[in-house]
Amino acid sequence: MTPPARIGQRLEEVDTPALVLDLDAFDKNLRTLADAVRGRVRVRTHAKTHKCPEVAKRQMALGAVGACCQKVAEAEAMVEGGVGDVLVTNEIVGAPKLERLARLAARAKLGVCVDDAGNVRELESAAARAGTRLDVYVEMDVGMGRCGVPPGEPVVALARAVTGAPHLRFAGMQAYHGRAQHLRTLAERRAAIERAAAQVRATRKLLEDAGLVCPRVTGAGSGTFMLEVESGAWDEIQPGSYAFMDADYARNEWAAPLPRFEHALFVLATVMSRGGGTRAIVDAGLKASSVDSGMPSVWQRPGLRYALASDEHGFLEIALGTAAPALGEKLLLVPGHCDPTINLYDWYVGVRKGVVQALWPITARGALT
Amino acid sequence: MTPPARIGQRLEEVDTPALVLDLDAFDKNLRTLADAVRGRVRVRTHAKTHKCPEVAKRQMALGAVGACCQKVAEAEAMVEGGVGDVLVTNEIVGAPKLERLARLAARAKLGVCVDDAGNVRELESAAARAGTRLDVYVEMDVGMGRCGVPPGEPVVALARAVTGAPHLRFAGMQAYHGRAQHLRTLAERRAAIERAAAQVRATRKLLEDAGLVCPRVTGAGSGTFMLEVESGAWDEIQPGSYAFMDADYARNEWAAPLPRFEHALFVLATVMSRGGGTRAIVDAGLKASSVDSGMPSVWQRPGLRYALASDEHGFLEIALGTAAPALGEKLLLVPGHCDPTINLYDWYVGVRKGVVQALWPITARGALT
Repeated sequence: MTPPARIGQRLEEVDTPALVLDLDAFDKNLRTLADAVRGRVRVRTHAKTHKCPEVAKRQMALGAVGACCQKVAEAEAMVEGGVGDVLVTNEIVGAPKLERLARLAARAKLGVCVDDAGNVRELESAAARAGTRLDVYVEMDVGMGRCGVPPGEPVVALARAVTGAPHLRFAGMQAYHGRAQHLRTLAERRAAIERAAAQVRATRKLLEDAGLVCPRVTGAGSGTFMLEVESGAWDEIQPGSYAFMDADYARNEWAAPLPRFEHALFVLATVMSRGGGTRAIVDAGLKASSVDSGMPSVWQRPGLRYALASDEHGFLEIALGTAAPALGEKLLLVPGHCDPTINLYDWYVGVRKGVVQALWPITARGALT
Repeated sequence: MTPPARIGQRLEEVDTPALVLDLDAFDKNLRTLADAVRGRVRVRTHAKTHKCPEVAKRQMALGAVGACCQKVAEAEAMVEGGVGDVLVTNEIVGAPKLERLARLAARAKLGVCVDDAGNVRELESAAARAGTRLDVYVEMDVGMGRCGVPPGEPVVALARAVTGAPHLRFAGMQAYHGRAQHLRTLAERRAAIERAAAQVRATRKLLEDAGLVCPRVTGAGSGTFMLEVESGAWDEIQPGSYAFMDADYARNEWAAPLPRFEHALFVLATVMSRGGGTRAIVDAGLKASSVDSGMPSVWQRPGLRYALASDEHGFLEIALGTAAPALGEKLLLVPGHCDPTINLYDWYVGVRKGVVQALWPITARGALT
């Protein structure tokens, strides 16, 4: 794979569209999170966002214990890239994937989530065949309405099934409230996490009453993690987006106890048409910046609004009194949603003070299975 | 790159998520289009949709003259894959891309669009340096409000600039009304294409009056192409989606003169959680099926509705009285929008009568520049 830029190239020389990482802002975001939670909770950053071992290793250098993944293929890419401790924060279903997961556990410390007793038996068989041992977390639905069993007795029943399986180790509970990350006001997010924390505490108590030690509760994302930390109910957090930020997270109310993160991730785009003089068209559409959570915003160019995306084009509205950008001019866009946007690219172009300093392959791009 | 399936494997054994092409429906769609327009108009199918030389070559075997692309990198992938006649239906801006485009013209017949006089001069310089010659189409905005100059004199002025450039050949007009493809009623689409046709005819007349021969008018997409054909104003059509179809095109009124196409493209997904018994969660979210034009639909499973996508999960609602799908069961999804969904995958898994018969690499996946 040919990199899309050269070390030492100036940002304005990089061909477009390109996924640009502002390394100063990125480094600062990594330090900000590490400083905010040091000594209070373990950090296991999420590779579903960054898809890149180079990013994971920099987060681990600042104290993260390892990476989270959503897919076995992501976990394989992380282990291949040198990450030695991976938690798949998801259920893994089907013999081919279970076999790959169990075999990967021979190369790294590996955890996985469960929400079904039959799946626990299949995990045990796969680990037994591979001769490995897996950390298993029971996923509890704390308000997201996605995977997981309801809080309380269903968690205890599954935890008991795990402790009875010789190639599995009951590692604790996965309690992730993804929906809470994007509630706009801090008060809404606090209320959601308080409800989740009460469920975590009550279920932990039930486990203890049943004689089951719950080694760890893991969960939390970039929009709420300090609320989980302050609740005291979580032992480990799983933030991903904080390293990059995006236009959707920028629409959240962002206040203490959450620290401020900076936009570090951009799509570099070129004005490719003046569309008859009334608009500007850039060469980055919805294949260059995912629009599932809204349009990208134009970085530090007041009066320019990215109004609409087609497959390969972005439509910029030019406010009255604003000079139209020149044909060929390059603009930075802040993606609407960082995770699926990163998944469209094979490389990060890392830039510091306007000069390309790093080219990191996104080796888990498209890692779907 | 390891293929995601094996020839001879049964569909239900293919690991998920996978991009599945029903080869019977695909072949039929290709023949249906070829039959509908044979002898009336040239066909140049769009590679922005399929991203795959194997698809382009099958379309050419049924009469297509070559492929359309939106990006130089797509054109490079098509030429590399054996497509000898490529039209970039887009403006190409910036020295690195112009150089690549001009050099590619040494390996294949190559066309490109313009909507700016300065860009014409840069194209001429690039072709002169590469020692090649490019077909150049003046793009006219016929109602899409994207790239292109307004109909009439601006087209004549640009066409004159092209004819004055020794390494460029004025090949005609690009007149594509992308927005019209998705107008829901046939009457709305017909009205839009009639307006566009009037602009095409008037501008062609102006060109002739100015002594400029307009060799060809090219445009049209899957939602309208028979309307362009019936108008008689276009010489060439550029359909892409017709080979696959998607949930968004299925929401169009679809009637004569447009022939019927079948859903040929699917995302195979696995039920990975029963989410507490009230829903079904599949392992294909918005990184497996682009949601820019709506959610995917569940194929031939009445009572199951794909209601919401997160990054790696799809939420299925189960209608009252419908049996819940089993954990581990595989379902076919019809993507909301085929183009950006195909762009998420590295391979088509071609299936005929439930058995994998073809594995085609999507070599222009992620071809952004």
